[in-house]
Amino acid sequence: MSGEQYVAVVGPADASEADIAAAYATGAALAARGAVVICGGMGGVMSAVAAGVRSAGGLCVGLLPGDSREGASPDLTVALPTGLGEVRNALVVRAADALVAIGGSWGTMSEIALAVRSGRPAVAVGGWQVVDASGSPVDGVIFAGDPGEAVEAVLALPSTDA
Amino acid sequence: MSGEQYVAVVGPADASEADIAAAYATGAALAARGAVVICGGMGGVMSAVAAGVRSAGGLCVGLLPGDSREGASPDLTVALPTGLGEVRNALVVRAADALVAIGGSWGTMSEIALAVRSGRPAVAVGGWQVVDASGSPVDGVIFAGDPGEAVEAVLALPSTDA
Amino acid sequence: MSGEQYVAVVGPADASEADIAAAYATGAALAARGAVVICGGMGGVMSAVAAGVRSAGGLCVGLLPGDSREGASPDLTVALPTGLGEVRNALVVRAADALVAIGGSWGTMSEIALAVRSGRPAVAVGGWQVVDASGSPVDGVIFAGDPGEAVEAVLALPSTDA
Amino acid sequence: MSGEQYVAVVGPADASEADIAAAYATGAALAARGAVVICGGMGGVMSAVAAGVRSAGGLCVGLLPGDSREGASPDLTVALPTGLGEVRNALVVRAADALVAIGGSWGTMSEIALAVRSGRPAVAVGGWQVVDASGSPVDGVIFAGDPGEAVEAVLALPSTDA
Repeated sequence: MSGEQYVAVVGPADASEADIAAAYATGAALAARGAVVICGGMGGVMSAVAAGVRSAGGLCVGLLPGDSREGASPDLTVALPTGLGEVRNALVVRAADALVAIGGSWGTMSEIALAVRSGRPAVAVGGWQVVDASGSPVDGVIFAGDPGEAVEAVLALPSTDA
Repeated sequence: MSGEQYVAVVGPADASEADIAAAYATGAALAARGAVVICGGMGGVMSAVAAGVRSAGGLCVGLLPGDSREGASPDLTVALPTGLGEVRNALVVRAADALVAIGGSWGTMSEIALAVRSGRPAVAVGGWQVVDASGSPVDGVIFAGDPGEAVEAVLALPSTDA
Repeated sequence: MSGEQYVAVVGPADASEADIAAAYATGAALAARGAVVICGGMGGVMSAVAAGVRSAGGLCVGLLPGDSREGASPDLTVALPTGLGEVRNALVVRAADALVAIGGSWGTMSEIALAVRSGRPAVAVGGWQVVDASGSPVDGVIFAGDPGEAVEAVLALPSTDA
Repeated sequence: MSGEQYVAVVGPADASEADIAAAYATGAALAARGAVVICGGMGGVMSAVAAGVRSAGGLCVGLLPGDSREGASPDLTVALPTGLGEVRNALVVRAADALVAIGGSWGTMSEIALAVRSGRPAVAVGGWQVVDASGSPVDGVIFAGDPGEAVEAVLALPSTDA
């Protein structure tokens, strides 16, 4: 267990095909590099990242919103019911050293914001962006062109749990 | 206790003078209308909204990030330590029927995102905005020109706890 | 807000008439002494303590297990949905400086245990007791004969939030 | 991931040699039977159960109280910081289908109580016991003579996540 990096991969349950493909590739690449992956454990991007991790023989933990494992992705290595609803988004971020976000949704935005707020590196592939009152992008999130770039970026960044 | 609306007012600890003034005015106006106000209980916008609520004889609850009441705004009616760090942002949203955000920060953005995600009306006065990949504003947040407009908007909206 | 003591009063939803009467008296006595009371916000002991606090013009906060205020005691001053289920038991303890337990149940026992675990004074009126392998009572909880004695004890004890 | 049972094994950080040995044996036996083990991730019983699971090639998840993985048992398969302090006790219980408690402490008692409260089977090896006002043991916990008996009991019981 010592020395691995823990990376949260987050994104919408209601995801586009491109987001699904990017999530699968990100999971596979992180697992190939020895990172432990944490996700929300349900459908869409969450399920795709678990499948990608599994394809590379890695370890993927799902922190589920409900009280049971019903509806959890079958590709998770470990599925942990929290019963916290969307409060679990904060725990997905807390459990990880860094975050990759794929695609846009308000749940995903909450996780990006909590990651930046708590000093965890956050890398986005596609999805939404935050701008200030003058329309300029707000600092804090690193934008990557594709999953490979995102994985390189996130593993190169200093972890909060050195 | 029956029939009141509970409104979370959120915003940065490190706030501008304009945000501080808007927070005070929002707190005073919500209290004058009989709403219970919930905030994060610390400095900046949080402290200013508590002072505004107090000026109008209202009730303001602070959900504090730490284990103790150290650093809590002296104007809170009730100060509740949670020991949850930024996880308490999710509880500030959860405890309220609707949200007013004043000013921009990543913590504030996490609360806006969790409010929209969970179906609670979210009204913003100034601050940051979320745009999609094409640069168009994403639906979900109502923008108000000033505190009076924000309070009218938030109290007119259907509450999630009818 | 400065200087008050915050006392959690906990006990079963399915409570005896004696527990209900003790909870009401405890709430009234704490409010008369200026303490802010925190409870789980639902029926039985929780509802009775809120009614006692209200009878003495005090302030009672309910941290509710569900996502809404449905089923909350109408005598609460402030009713805060947490959506955390029994995880909110830990927050009831966390938010308070000390705890009074009235009557016995497993939920109540979890709150007593978390209070002692975290160094908060815990006073019990009736209810269950914890014994070690040899049958001897385990240190940590102060037993009071009646609500008046419990309130004296809990307000005399050093608070964790001095 | 489908079909496994998830069992929380809990007990004091400050544990006796007998408790340490029992925790190791319990972890090894649960892993040998294919269960996923969840624990608090730190020292004493927590660390011993992780070592036992590892000795049998199983999977052990630690839900840590702090913000980082500092002090986590090196034998955990997955170490997840929660930053929740003792609130994480409630999540250790929530994530599992059933619970084995080894040894006595107030933290351990909080986990036993939350397990029984939420309908999860709870089996104790040694440790403390709860009695009612008349001194009679309160129903809810199954007492096992040794780790082997505890593991048989806990795996035979109907899970809450069928």
